[in-house]
Amino acid sequence: MINNLDQLLELAKKQKTKTLAIAVADDKYVMSAVAKAKELGLIAPIFIGDSVKIKEIAVELGISINEIEIIHKPNGDEACAEAAKLVSEGKANLLMKGLISTSTLLKQIVSKKYGLLTGKLLSHLAIFESPNYYKLFGLSDAAMNISPSVDERLSILQNAVEVFHHLGVTKPKVAVLAAVEKINPKIPSTTDAALIVDKIKQNYISNCIVDGPLALDNAISKEAAMHKGIRGEVAGDADILIVPDINTGNILYKSLSFLGNARCAAIIVGGKVPIVLTSRADSEETKFLSIALGVLISN
Amino acid sequence: MINNLDQLLELAKKQKTKTLAIAVADDKYVMSAVAKAKELGLIAPIFIGDSVKIKEIAVELGISINEIEIIHKPNGDEACAEAAKLVSEGKANLLMKGLISTSTLLKQIVSKKYGLLTGKLLSHLAIFESPNYYKLFGLSDAAMNISPSVDERLSILQNAVEVFHHLGVTKPKVAVLAAVEKINPKIPSTTDAALIVDKIKQNYISNCIVDGPLALDNAISKEAAMHKGIRGEVAGDADILIVPDINTGNILYKSLSFLGNARCAAIIVGGKVPIVLTSRADSEETKFLSIALGVLISN
Repeated sequence: MINNLDQLLELAKKQKTKTLAIAVADDKYVMSAVAKAKELGLIAPIFIGDSVKIKEIAVELGISINEIEIIHKPNGDEACAEAAKLVSEGKANLLMKGLISTSTLLKQIVSKKYGLLTGKLLSHLAIFESPNYYKLFGLSDAAMNISPSVDERLSILQNAVEVFHHLGVTKPKVAVLAAVEKINPKIPSTTDAALIVDKIKQNYISNCIVDGPLALDNAISKEAAMHKGIRGEVAGDADILIVPDINTGNILYKSLSFLGNARCAAIIVGGKVPIVLTSRADSEETKFLSIALGVLISN
Repeated sequence: MINNLDQLLELAKKQKTKTLAIAVADDKYVMSAVAKAKELGLIAPIFIGDSVKIKEIAVELGISINEIEIIHKPNGDEACAEAAKLVSEGKANLLMKGLISTSTLLKQIVSKKYGLLTGKLLSHLAIFESPNYYKLFGLSDAAMNISPSVDERLSILQNAVEVFHHLGVTKPKVAVLAAVEKINPKIPSTTDAALIVDKIKQNYISNCIVDGPLALDNAISKEAAMHKGIRGEVAGDADILIVPDINTGNILYKSLSFLGNARCAAIIVGGKVPIVLTSRADSEETKFLSIALGVLISN
């Protein structure tokens, strides 16, 4: 079991070096994070984008590009298509979004031409290390699915559970979050959470332990759970937080990152390969740790 | 201007002592916070509830009850009604919820019998002090309005702005939060935020500066706002965060409190008097600071 992101990084280092295709790589912050991951032997990068700009940035950052493959595709759509093609041909084990909109990259990823979809829902998973919690915890979906249905949230949940299996947590504890821990028909997040928990039980899904609705404090603080008389294995000890929608997910993600001194690695899962898809606002460390997470789960 | 909750407390101490009616006071944590506020001269309490239990708790906590008014109302509904009556008769300047459900207390508060409503929407406002932000900031509504409409959120916004005027912020900067900072018809929180900002401008409301949609990071981090090229006076410098709904509000509130080492004072505003309405999970410090906030804004 991995309790913090440094341990996650150590485990990623023990994996075979993976080939990472970066779509529109000509961004200083992205290239810097990739260079660090290469230095540690995590990945062999393929930079796709404007080769002139890529070489300029490499010089600026002091990155040696002699051994690095660069594919000149100055057009954004074509760069993304090339990255998807490399994965479909088995020439890349991982994808990373560079200086391009998420929608442009996703257009290529969901294209049937490349067969990158597996039938599962694509979802965003962030793994957080908070100074105020004793172990890593996952948050999904903070960035991709806007207003997922109950069934879609079940898929989001299963995607997250699979990643935690990779992290060595055999039966991750999943909290389905809502505004309050009591089922209240006036608050759909509570009734939806109850439905999700019920479906997990009905379908005899046993690769995780699920509880909900739980308010955030009941999910991550044993003391708060005790105060409210909430029992069960998940209360106060969650590995994974499933949020109602993108508003809650994004605000929680930003709160942890900007007001909670938390470290983070984030990835899109559910496809043929993990996709490192960080935003401009994310730190270089987050980008680097996200690559490490991708390497770890790309087996 | 007040930059942290200690300064808020100091300013509250300079106010005239207020009379605080506590509905169903027989709770150790509530009584302890009230006793501390009394000791500092902030309030003169009226304990309403089971007088036998109240006296027992007073003995347990070492609180001298000789000078304290106790009204024996062992029935919860009657205790809440009594508290509302005291306010309507001008015998109490502030209300506090004790060991009773919020709905039971609110039933009495919204009753026409007592005239505690003013025509404004009642809303919950939390004032946070985060180690990662340079000034206090408000969050509304994290606990009361479940899924407020655009117009209701305008009322929530104005309630919060009025409180910040009391705190000496003459033109509070208000960020209307959403999942992302770009208006996206697929994400209603972004279009609603744009509507709210537009209505403020259309109505020439000039007691605050509003911007939105903003993601949380753009609202409270100048660096994140710069990264995204977001300008304006609010970006990175918000005094007040208006959230889309109770899910986002509650999860942000809990994230700051339980994973962000933030201190907090919270109150229901919009009624004839402020109502201190903290939850069992809140710390004694939050309860105490919330009383101080109530004292400060009850003028």
